[in-house]
Amino acid sequence: MSTLRILGIDPGLVATGWGAIERTGNSLAFIACGTIRVSRTQPLAQRLSLLLHSLQEVVAHHEPDHLAIEEVFLGKNPKTTLTLGQARAVALLTVGERPYAEYAPRTIKQVVSASGSADKQQIRDMLRRLLPDSPLAGAKNNTLDEQTLDEHASDALAVALCHAFSLKSKDLEQRLRETA
Amino acid sequence: MSTLRILGIDPGLVATGWGAIERTGNSLAFIACGTIRVSRTQPLAQRLSLLLHSLQEVVAHHEPDHLAIEEVFLGKNPKTTLTLGQARAVALLTVGERPYAEYAPRTIKQVVSASGSADKQQIRDMLRRLLPDSPLAGAKNNTLDEQTLDEHASDALAVALCHAFSLKSKDLEQRLRETA
Repeated sequence: MSTLRILGIDPGLVATGWGAIERTGNSLAFIACGTIRVSRTQPLAQRLSLLLHSLQEVVAHHEPDHLAIEEVFLGKNPKTTLTLGQARAVALLTVGERPYAEYAPRTIKQVVSASGSADKQQIRDMLRRLLPDSPLAGAKNNTLDEQTLDEHASDALAVALCHAFSLKSKDLEQRLRETA
Repeated sequence: MSTLRILGIDPGLVATGWGAIERTGNSLAFIACGTIRVSRTQPLAQRLSLLLHSLQEVVAHHEPDHLAIEEVFLGKNPKTTLTLGQARAVALLTVGERPYAEYAPRTIKQVVSASGSADKQQIRDMLRRLLPDSPLAGAKNNTLDEQTLDEHASDALAVALCHAFSLKSKDLEQRLRETA
C-alpha cells in the first residue's frame, strides 16, 4: 500500500504555519509541523524573500507528494486582502510541479470535524484523535499548549488532514493527478 | 560621474511590464523594456512560478542598482485586490538585497508629467521626450504602437523615471541607501 505525504500550509505574512502528515490507506500519521515567523521591521521585499526561502526549505526537507493550502479570507479591508494575496503567492510559489489544492476554512472545518462552524477547540480535539503522535496529543487539559503547537501549525495540520480525507474521493484524486 | 541603472516594474498577474533606464547625473538613457505574459490556463501556482522566474531572468540580465515598483491599486473588488497582492509579491521577490521603492500611480504621473491626473497620452509624450532612444520615440503619430511598446512596458518605464527624478532629492537617496 503506497504512502502519500501531504504538506499543509496556513499562509500568513506575520506567521505561516506548516504541517506534514502521511496517509497509508486509511491510516494517518503525524510527521512534523512548525511556524515560520518573519520580523515586521524588515522591508516587505526582504520579508517575502525570507518567508519564501524558509518555506522552500521545509518543502525540500519533507518532500511532500501533495500540498494543501488554506484559502485566504477575502475581508472587507483591501489592505488586509492585499497582504493575504502576498502570503498566498509565497505559499503557491513553493508548490513547484507537485499536485496541490486549496481549501476554504469552512470546508476544512466541515471535512475534519463534520461541522462548518466548528470552533478551534473542536478542530484541535479532532487533530488530537486523528494524529495521536502529534504535539497536540501531548498538550495538557484540552487547551492549546503554545509551547507544543501554535494556532498556525494547528491550522496547517488541519488543511493537510482535509486534503487526506478529500482524496478518498477517487474523482478528486484523479483530478489532482491530471492537474499535476 | 557614476551611472545608476534602474529597473521599473508594473506588476500584473496577466501581464507584468518592465523597463530599464540609466541615470548619469542629469542625463537619462533608455536601456530595454518588455512585457511578460503568462497563460491564464495554467494553475495559479505554475503561473506565479513562471512569472517569478521570467522576472528574475530580467533582473539577472540587466543587473539594476535600484528597483522601482508601481504600487498596486486597492480596488473595491476583494478578488482583484488578492490577485494584485500576488503580482506585487512576485515583483518584490525579485528585489533581493537591492534598494527599492514603490510609487503610487498618482505620484508617478505627478513626478513624470507634473500632473497627478495626466492621461496615458501625456505620460507617453513625456517618456518620448525624456528617453529619445526608447521604442516609444519610434511610435508614429503620437499614438502607442502596440508592436513597439505596450501599456505595461510604458508604465514600467514611467515608474523607473519617477524613481530617477525622486532620487535627485538627496534625502530620499540617503534613505534608500539606509534601507538597502
